[in-house]
Amino acid sequence: MKLGRLNHVGVATPDLDASIAFYRDVMGASDITEPFVLESQKVRVCFVNTPRDSGALDTRGGTQIELLEPTDPDSAVGKWLARNPMGGQHHICYEVEDIAQAHAWFIAQGKRVLGEPRIGAHGTMIFFVHPKDMNGQLTEIMQRPAGGH
Amino acid sequence: MKLGRLNHVGVATPDLDASIAFYRDVMGASDITEPFVLESQKVRVCFVNTPRDSGALDTRGGTQIELLEPTDPDSAVGKWLARNPMGGQHHICYEVEDIAQAHAWFIAQGKRVLGEPRIGAHGTMIFFVHPKDMNGQLTEIMQRPAGGH
Repeated sequence: MKLGRLNHVGVATPDLDASIAFYRDVMGASDITEPFVLESQKVRVCFVNTPRDSGALDTRGGTQIELLEPTDPDSAVGKWLARNPMGGQHHICYEVEDIAQAHAWFIAQGKRVLGEPRIGAHGTMIFFVHPKDMNGQLTEIMQRPAGGH
Repeated sequence: MKLGRLNHVGVATPDLDASIAFYRDVMGASDITEPFVLESQKVRVCFVNTPRDSGALDTRGGTQIELLEPTDPDSAVGKWLARNPMGGQHHICYEVEDIAQAHAWFIAQGKRVLGEPRIGAHGTMIFFVHPKDMNGQLTEIMQRPAGGH
């Protein structure tokens, strides 16, 4: 296992549109993707692109903020928000070169891997590892995309 | 205000050495800085460097993980850990070009800015903004370093 790029920090919110306005108007973000619904995780999602060192905003720019609004209170994010009603940092996501190898690695390390790899918000395979086995951080492992984010 | 580079994600831990071992042995990090004590925040700190898109690990590589172990249970991080004993994501830090301007900006936005700018773990001026005014995220604003991290 080799530490990959920090793809994004997942931030749960009870109101995606209000959060988009916050990142645009308060934080000064100029590049926020169009929200879409990710049915498999019962969330409405968009990404706030942050600049690289150069200040460039390209498709492989800085670590993104992934904003997540549950579409169902019974979803994982919905339940998390019930405990953290104002929202906040929900998970962290690292890229890997080989999702199947990473999945086997975390299982071999005795970590509680939450299900089989499945398609994530960037269209590549992802899985989650339980925060209790990851120093308190719900951790998403994501197949590195071939092209952009 | 213009959204700056996502400098780091602050992760609190009750045991910095165990966390370093976790990032090295489980996550596969190859570049972790030497821990040091930041007296002003009563924490022992180090940074896990994550690769950029190119896989390069240079001084302005990817967003860092800042590991924080309190040196005093009465510190801000110590109190946070008392509520979150296994540790986890504590704050998020964005760079700005002008710390004084950013300080004035957040105050003008009616955000609770936690004190005056002071020297942070990267040796440049920083301040924090209250999570209740920042969508649930304790947010650090940091003067962009002239050179490396």
